[in-house]
Amino acid sequence: MNATWNLCSKELKKALKTVNLDGQPSELYEPIEYILSLGGKRLRPMLCLIANQVFGGELKKAMPLALGLEIFHNFTLVHDDIMDQAPLRRGFATVHEKWNKEIAILSGDVMFVKAYEQLIQFETAKLPELLSLFNQTAIEVCEGQQMDMNFEKLPEIQLKDYLQMIELKTAVLLACSLKMGAISSNANSKSADLIYEFGKNIGIAFQIQDDYLDAYADPEKFGKQVGGDILQNKKTYLLLTAFQEANKLQKEQLQKLLNEKTNNAEKISQTIHLFNELKVPELAQKAMQNYFNKGMKAMQKIDVANFEAKKELIDLAQTLMGREV
Amino acid sequence: MNATWNLCSKELKKALKTVNLDGQPSELYEPIEYILSLGGKRLRPMLCLIANQVFGGELKKAMPLALGLEIFHNFTLVHDDIMDQAPLRRGFATVHEKWNKEIAILSGDVMFVKAYEQLIQFETAKLPELLSLFNQTAIEVCEGQQMDMNFEKLPEIQLKDYLQMIELKTAVLLACSLKMGAISSNANSKSADLIYEFGKNIGIAFQIQDDYLDAYADPEKFGKQVGGDILQNKKTYLLLTAFQEANKLQKEQLQKLLNEKTNNAEKISQTIHLFNELKVPELAQKAMQNYFNKGMKAMQKIDVANFEAKKELIDLAQTLMGREV
Repeated sequence: MNATWNLCSKELKKALKTVNLDGQPSELYEPIEYILSLGGKRLRPMLCLIANQVFGGELKKAMPLALGLEIFHNFTLVHDDIMDQAPLRRGFATVHEKWNKEIAILSGDVMFVKAYEQLIQFETAKLPELLSLFNQTAIEVCEGQQMDMNFEKLPEIQLKDYLQMIELKTAVLLACSLKMGAISSNANSKSADLIYEFGKNIGIAFQIQDDYLDAYADPEKFGKQVGGDILQNKKTYLLLTAFQEANKLQKEQLQKLLNEKTNNAEKISQTIHLFNELKVPELAQKAMQNYFNKGMKAMQKIDVANFEAKKELIDLAQTLMGREV
Repeated sequence: MNATWNLCSKELKKALKTVNLDGQPSELYEPIEYILSLGGKRLRPMLCLIANQVFGGELKKAMPLALGLEIFHNFTLVHDDIMDQAPLRRGFATVHEKWNKEIAILSGDVMFVKAYEQLIQFETAKLPELLSLFNQTAIEVCEGQQMDMNFEKLPEIQLKDYLQMIELKTAVLLACSLKMGAISSNANSKSADLIYEFGKNIGIAFQIQDDYLDAYADPEKFGKQVGGDILQNKKTYLLLTAFQEANKLQKEQLQKLLNEKTNNAEKISQTIHLFNELKVPELAQKAMQNYFNKGMKAMQKIDVANFEAKKELIDLAQTLMGREV
C-alpha cells in the first residue's frame, strides 16, 4: 500500500502547477520554470508532506512548506552547478550552460526569495520556529557545499570530515523537510526532533549507499556507468575508507591508480580489487547499516497518529537504501 | 541639529559589532566579515532607523530590520560584482577578486540567509507583513539588476525602461528600508505607504543626480574623474535623454562619439557639448526635481510623532541630492 505517498504526490503535483513563476524580465524567470520542470524525485517536499500525514496533519497546511523546500533545493542545484561547472542536470543542460553564469546566479537568487515567499504563507504563530529551522538548514547546506569544494583541493581528507560534509550538504535538508512536516501538523517538539534525527541519519546512510552503488551496483540495474566516481577520482566514502585502511604499499597503489589517466576499465577493476582487499565494501555497508539503524531507532520512539503513513515512511527509507541494507 | 542621525548611527555601529559572523568553513565567513567591514554609507539601515524615530518608535526594535537590510544590500553587491566583473568595491578588491567566484556566490548566499536571520527576530505578529515587503523588494532588486545587464547588450533603450530599471535596482530598497522602519514603530499603514513613496521617488531622483554629477560635477569636489560614464559608454539618464532629443544628424554624432575609442578628453568635451546643445542637463535637472517634489509631496502628507526627526530626514534627502535641487 502506498496510499499516503500517492495522495501526497498527487496533491504536490497539483500545487506545483499553481506556483506563479511569471515575471519580467523573462531572462530571470524562464530559467526558474525550466529547472523546476526538469522533475527529479521531489524527495524533500514528499518527505515534508508524508511527515505531515504521519502526525495526522492537514495536507493543505504543509503544502507551502513543501513547495518552499523544493524551490530552495532547486536553487541550490542551480548555484552548485555553476560552482561545479556541471554541464548537465537530470540529463538536460544546466541553467548556466543553457543561459549563462550571470543569469544562473541571479535567477537562483530569485528562487531563494520565492522559497521564502512560500514559507511565509504558513500560520504566523509558527513562522519563527519554521524559519529558524529553515535558515539554519540553508546555512548548513552552504557550509556543506563549501566543504565539498575545499575537499577537491585537499590531498588528504579524514572520514569524519567527509561524514560531516555529507551531513551538511545533503542530510540536514532531508531532516529539515521531515521536521517541517511534523511542525505543520502540531506534532510535539520531541517527535519533531526525533523525525529530524531519523531523516539526518537516513540521509547520511543514503549518501554512503550512493557512493557504494557507484562502484558495486549491478551494471544492468544501475542507470549510469558503474565506476564513474573511480574514473573521476572522486573522494567518496569508499576511497577515503580505502586510504584509512591501507598500509604503506597499498597507499602507493591507490595513489598510482589515482594518477592513472588511461585505460578506464583497468583503472576501475584494479581499484575495486584493492577496495575488496581492504574490505572497503564491508566497511561501507556496516557504516550504512549503523546510520540506518540509528535513524530507525529514532523513528521507533515516535508516537504517531497514522501508523500506515509511518510504515510507508519506513518503507520509503528502505527503498532509498536500495533494499540492500 | 543631527540628533536623530547621530543617535541612530551610534546605535547601528554598536549593533553591527554584535552580528555573529563566525563559522566554518572559514572560506565562507571571512568574505562576509570582509565586505561588511568595508563600510559604505550604511544608508539603508540608517533610513530604517530614522523612519522608526520619525514615528516615535523604539530604536531597539528596528535594529534587526536595519541589520537585515544592510546584510541584504551587501549580499547584492557581492553577487552584482561577480556579474559585472567589477574589480573594486569601495576602493578594495571585490570578494570574487580577493577569493574567487565560487566563494563569492556561496558566501553571498549565506549572507542572504543571515539577512533573514535578522529579520525574523522581529515580533512574530508582524513577520508576514515585513517579510512580504522584504521578499517583494528583494525580487525587484534582482529584476532591476537583470534589466541593467540586458540594457548593456541592447542597442536602444527607452527612457521609461531606464527609469523602471533604476526604480527596481536602487529606489525600492531605499523605500522598503523606510517602510520597515515605519512598521517597526507602529505607524499606520497609510503613513507607511507614504514614506515608501517618499523613499522611492527620492531614490529615483538620487540616481538621476548620480548620472548628472558624473558629467557635470565640479571636478574639485567630485571624488572621481568627471566624465567617467561617458568614457565607458554607460547608458545613463543623460545619454538616453540625448538620444531621445537628438535629430538624425545629432544621433549620428552621438553614435560616432560612442564609437570613439581614443582621445579621452576630446570625447568627454564633445559629448558634453552635444548634451548641452540638446538641453540634456536642464532636462535631467527637471526630471530630478519632479521626482524630488513627488517624494516631498508624499512626505508632507505624513503625520509624524517626531517633527525633529522628520526634518532631519528631509534634510538628508536634500543632502543626498547634493543641495543642487
